[in-house]
Amino acid sequence: MEQRISLITLGVTDLARARAFYESLGWRGREVEETVFFQAGGLALVLWGRDRLAADCGLPDPGTAGFGGIALAHNVRSRQEVDGLLAAAGRAGATITRPAGVTPYGGYAGAITDPDGHPWEIAHNPGFTLAEDGSLVLVLPDFTA
Amino acid sequence: MEQRISLITLGVTDLARARAFYESLGWRGREVEETVFFQAGGLALVLWGRDRLAADCGLPDPGTAGFGGIALAHNVRSRQEVDGLLAAAGRAGATITRPAGVTPYGGYAGAITDPDGHPWEIAHNPGFTLAEDGSLVLVLPDFTA
Repeated sequence: MEQRISLITLGVTDLARARAFYESLGWRGREVEETVFFQAGGLALVLWGRDRLAADCGLPDPGTAGFGGIALAHNVRSRQEVDGLLAAAGRAGATITRPAGVTPYGGYAGAITDPDGHPWEIAHNPGFTLAEDGSLVLVLPDFTA
Repeated sequence: MEQRISLITLGVTDLARARAFYESLGWRGREVEETVFFQAGGLALVLWGRDRLAADCGLPDPGTAGFGGIALAHNVRSRQEVDGLLAAAGRAGATITRPAGVTPYGGYAGAITDPDGHPWEIAHNPGFTLAEDGSLVLVLPDFTA
């Protein structure tokens, strides 16, 4: 198995609402057969019906809207960007589940859930380098050892 | 908001077990303060305690191990690779939740859950181009329109 992820699919209950949320934050994608695809670096973020996604995974869907065990993070380059993006997400319909604050690792972060309850942490982490194209490059000592 | 994802964090209940699962499939990462980081293209896949992740997101954790509303996908270059990877994942401790089969879009895919129940689809999709480095490049018509 190569060390990479091809797609992240978010199960949604209202595709138009979910698409509008991400578009209002500046994302641009394309809808094909009730599925929205966004290119996000070397992978695709996909919005698809939650019931279909569960079936596709061969899993029953308890249908709970709570924490599902996975979180996405979007890192930015300054604390000001964290504040600005949290505010923009709130205006776009997100729930701010953790207000921005200083983190134990010396960063600054807050968290939201999108209209389907999917969590995103919005963070400035001075320990993680962001390349010019936004890629996150782990620079922990001997990381590949 | 730039159109990118910095980290995907999988909440786990047994960090050593989760790390061993991904390592047995060939992933190589680094553990720092009870957190395992894997570089995966332009983002990091992170393994972290599920209870801490929920708290970090500001969310209560229902603790259900079922479908959480998000799925990851790992696309490969042939049907044979799908079969090989599903078998390897099964040997590594995954549950095969959907055996490999032909998909409606003309591909071939199956699905597993990792030891913490996180779903991965393993797919060969001839409609999605994989770059030499494994990046998935959406080539839907007028995708950026």
